[in-house]
Amino acid sequence: MGGPALLPGVALPRPASDPAAAITRGVRRMLAERGIRGLVEFPLANGRRADILALADDGEVSIVEVKSSVVDFRTDQKWPEYLEFCDRFYFAVDPHFPQELIPAGCGLIVADAFGAEVLRPAPLARLAGARRKALTLRVAQVAMARLHRVEDPGLGW
Amino acid sequence: MGGPALLPGVALPRPASDPAAAITRGVRRMLAERGIRGLVEFPLANGRRADILALADDGEVSIVEVKSSVVDFRTDQKWPEYLEFCDRFYFAVDPHFPQELIPAGCGLIVADAFGAEVLRPAPLARLAGARRKALTLRVAQVAMARLHRVEDPGLGW
Repeated sequence: MGGPALLPGVALPRPASDPAAAITRGVRRMLAERGIRGLVEFPLANGRRADILALADDGEVSIVEVKSSVVDFRTDQKWPEYLEFCDRFYFAVDPHFPQELIPAGCGLIVADAFGAEVLRPAPLARLAGARRKALTLRVAQVAMARLHRVEDPGLGW
Repeated sequence: MGGPALLPGVALPRPASDPAAAITRGVRRMLAERGIRGLVEFPLANGRRADILALADDGEVSIVEVKSSVVDFRTDQKWPEYLEFCDRFYFAVDPHFPQELIPAGCGLIVADAFGAEVLRPAPLARLAGARRKALTLRVAQVAMARLHRVEDPGLGW
């Protein structure tokens, strides 16, 4: 019944010495302080992967795209494809990133390995109910599958 | 903003030599083979904890209550309180458990540490939409919070 098809690769966190991993860690910590949890490398229905997908208590979905450098930012111009899968979209960068490069219509987070700050809130573009429902269910399943692999290392797949 | 209040205790899996842990592991493996993931020790809104809460691709919610012995079964007669939080309710027991003790209206799973078999499917009693929505969101958040603690051990809480 398609168990393996549901399985995402295990998202082993990269070491925080990796610049993108440091930003990711800081963003997740900031979110957690607000009672919001972020799932990394979340596979979207359009085939792309969101760096961080966050789910608030009221069901609001944010996607945070991590950019570790100007090159990283310039070589990925597909970010508009994330917009249809979240209520709010943010870029997260380190403190040295030239912030003027970030499009004005996107939220902006500055982060290091230990925390983060929202410099500019993202505008709200609410998901349709059916998509929010499907997305929330999928987030639950991906998180549960990853947790299961951690909790039962003998699972084998 | 209530971050710590959202935090469940980390659900470290008990060693599989514990009879209840062995059954739990086998049930989760059987579910995973069907593409269904089970979250252990899931805190319900009524203050009780479900041994395993499972979420299928179509959003169907099952609760599996693990009973490692007759004493364990007889000393907990509060299982009807789980019914309002799932579409299907099961007891899971080991192969030596006297199955006639399990109420006829409940599903029955027999499990060991390596797998499980559904001996009697649970009747379907569909959740109302609002409760399903709230429950799915909460499952996602609990699973994400536990995963975050695993992936960022320096989180501290």
